[in-house]
Amino acid sequence: MASTDQVPDIEQPDQKATEEEDEVTPWTVSSKSEKGINYDKLIDRFGSSKIDDALLKRIEKVTGKPVHHLLRRGIFFSHREMDLILTTVEQGKPFYLYTGRGPSSEAMHLGHLIPFIFTKWLQDTFDVPLVIQMTDDEKFLWKDLTIDEANRLAHENAKDIIACGFDIEKTFIFSDVEYISSCPDFYKYMCRIQKGVTFNQVKGIFGFTESDCIGKISFPAIQAAPSFSGAFPMIFNKKQDIQCLIPCAIDQDPYFRMTRDVAPKLGCKKPALLHSTFFPALQGAQSKMSASDPTSSIFLTDTDKQIKDKINKYAYSGGGSTVEEHKEKGGDCSVDVAFQYMKFFSEDDERLAQIEKDYTSGELLTGYLKKELIGVLQKLVGEHRERRAKVTDELVREFMTPRKLKFDYGTDQQAKK
Amino acid sequence: MASTDQVPDIEQPDQKATEEEDEVTPWTVSSKSEKGINYDKLIDRFGSSKIDDALLKRIEKVTGKPVHHLLRRGIFFSHREMDLILTTVEQGKPFYLYTGRGPSSEAMHLGHLIPFIFTKWLQDTFDVPLVIQMTDDEKFLWKDLTIDEANRLAHENAKDIIACGFDIEKTFIFSDVEYISSCPDFYKYMCRIQKGVTFNQVKGIFGFTESDCIGKISFPAIQAAPSFSGAFPMIFNKKQDIQCLIPCAIDQDPYFRMTRDVAPKLGCKKPALLHSTFFPALQGAQSKMSASDPTSSIFLTDTDKQIKDKINKYAYSGGGSTVEEHKEKGGDCSVDVAFQYMKFFSEDDERLAQIEKDYTSGELLTGYLKKELIGVLQKLVGEHRERRAKVTDELVREFMTPRKLKFDYGTDQQAKK
Repeated sequence: MASTDQVPDIEQPDQKATEEEDEVTPWTVSSKSEKGINYDKLIDRFGSSKIDDALLKRIEKVTGKPVHHLLRRGIFFSHREMDLILTTVEQGKPFYLYTGRGPSSEAMHLGHLIPFIFTKWLQDTFDVPLVIQMTDDEKFLWKDLTIDEANRLAHENAKDIIACGFDIEKTFIFSDVEYISSCPDFYKYMCRIQKGVTFNQVKGIFGFTESDCIGKISFPAIQAAPSFSGAFPMIFNKKQDIQCLIPCAIDQDPYFRMTRDVAPKLGCKKPALLHSTFFPALQGAQSKMSASDPTSSIFLTDTDKQIKDKINKYAYSGGGSTVEEHKEKGGDCSVDVAFQYMKFFSEDDERLAQIEKDYTSGELLTGYLKKELIGVLQKLVGEHRERRAKVTDELVREFMTPRKLKFDYGTDQQAKK
Repeated sequence: MASTDQVPDIEQPDQKATEEEDEVTPWTVSSKSEKGINYDKLIDRFGSSKIDDALLKRIEKVTGKPVHHLLRRGIFFSHREMDLILTTVEQGKPFYLYTGRGPSSEAMHLGHLIPFIFTKWLQDTFDVPLVIQMTDDEKFLWKDLTIDEANRLAHENAKDIIACGFDIEKTFIFSDVEYISSCPDFYKYMCRIQKGVTFNQVKGIFGFTESDCIGKISFPAIQAAPSFSGAFPMIFNKKQDIQCLIPCAIDQDPYFRMTRDVAPKLGCKKPALLHSTFFPALQGAQSKMSASDPTSSIFLTDTDKQIKDKINKYAYSGGGSTVEEHKEKGGDCSVDVAFQYMKFFSEDDERLAQIEKDYTSGELLTGYLKKELIGVLQKLVGEHRERRAKVTDELVREFMTPRKLKFDYGTDQQAKK
């Protein structure tokens, strides 16, 4: 996945973005509003669909379970053809999940967890295979990293992903460098996609210029390929037509718009998508969360004390500047980072509603809200830390070994090209 | 290798070529002169060096053998740093050979044999490893072929290449589709090259446009990668710095100009090159040799009768239009296809000199020259046919299996990236 991966890489809008228009690409997410991106406008611009109550109800009806709080709270807010996935399930037909990560640094932060927490819920709820792409080649192309270092980071990050609790019998994690150089079918899909997409198209979709290296220009085909079940012959028994569903942050949508455009040329099904909003930096939705600035985010390696200090010191407050002012005017939950983080990570709907009410009215002070958040995050990160410590190199190797998963796909069927 | 592969894909010059300038790219070779390309001018334009007598003498001195007739007769006429290769040999240091073929059709013709006949001589003379790239991915990208069909043709063409007599202990033949999807080091070199070359550069070198697919735009990196010994860790014991020498037709030079440009960025040695002229079509150096037009060339599958009929019927004559005129004015060897073919394939220098003298004076008639050529070609193609019939699928598999060759490269040394 591209460089932002749920990270709101918020920068001042450049010439391309108009005064009123947010910029959202896999490499830049920028907004002038302190509330961050206007997601409704983004749905219009991208041509995706809003996840509405009717769709949530249908998901609950099909799965027989309540939807995840990230769906309920509008954090996954947009989709492409999620209704088709539900019809597929109703018809008893298979589908699979695909998500990914660009391994550009050792330290993953809270925002990086969002797609994986949600994807695990999807996997548990629908009982389907999951492929997770680690784009070490992409990180090599975009960053000042050697390809071996990017590959090493893919393995390090895989540990954090595995620690999210994925079922090894249902999950294949792969590094591009390793999998491309071990699976002819994957490389064939890359070539077929690269034949079906022109420079003009990637220029239009991603804003590539003539000064960009040819590696960047052809990379989108590599992120597109896992959308097609034929790229994983060992999992899908060479079946080319298993439907794919991709949960990801909305900044990744350009890759999959391209994928959906090219799919019919390949005789393949278009992947469906579920899009999330961005996870805000501690300093607020308008500032940049950066791996090189430890004060901008909570890392999965942070100690309890670091979590406490960072939240208390840096989390942007939507409350009044004095206790008196706060009590009088109330707090603004829509820009308060502590409240936003609670929305992402607290699972208790009733408590969240209470907090929103009391903080808005001014009854709940920022300090108390932060204290509650610190407790939630210390528990979350602490449990993650424990699970991660148990992830051995051997377990990573097992997850990253191309193999059949626990699902069967009928009798042998030759790959059609 | 790109689409022409020694085939003079001669077409009318388009807008890009000026009145006087030949056009030579991997996809188009065009000239207005009936003598074909002006190779001296090409050396100036490409910035390569002419293979002169001094270099030929030095090759003979270093190898202790007479040079091959394709060198003696100026068919391999241009080079880049062949002197460096000779110094490498004098210093007792290793080098290796790299050539290739784009497998776009089942039927290879005489022209396709040239680089392989010459490469075999280089291998025998210098006793060095040879890697032969079959660019099935490229043919898929450029032609109306499925990728599996291109891959099948790679195996078919490998049989003709093996029939040239390469030593299995010194030769690795690979299909891109198969080798890229089996060797991480090769893919890493592809990525490193793709990071070091921009769209502007490939646009300048190959004339790609914004309407070209992203597969074509990034392909040059795949043809460049075998120029670096690190792309073949099983052959070179992970050594990154073994010098490469590439014998090829001059239309392939753009790929290797790019490769030589990017090599220092990768901390790698620039490959040296030996360039050949183009093999003329039966109808002469200005017409197009086409696999879809069986009258334009002699195929390796042609029978003795087909060879005889094609030469007699189609080989463009530089002789007089009547016996009287021929005897009076003499023949023009520089445009006579039968004489040109003798230059490529007859090994007897004295006889060739005699023919040139007698044909130029008018003493030797076209019919007799053609008869002698027919004998030479029937023998050549006949022997090739016999050797090819003995090439089993099993032998092809052995040649195409990534493996150590008979050469040793010291103790283990980690790949540096």
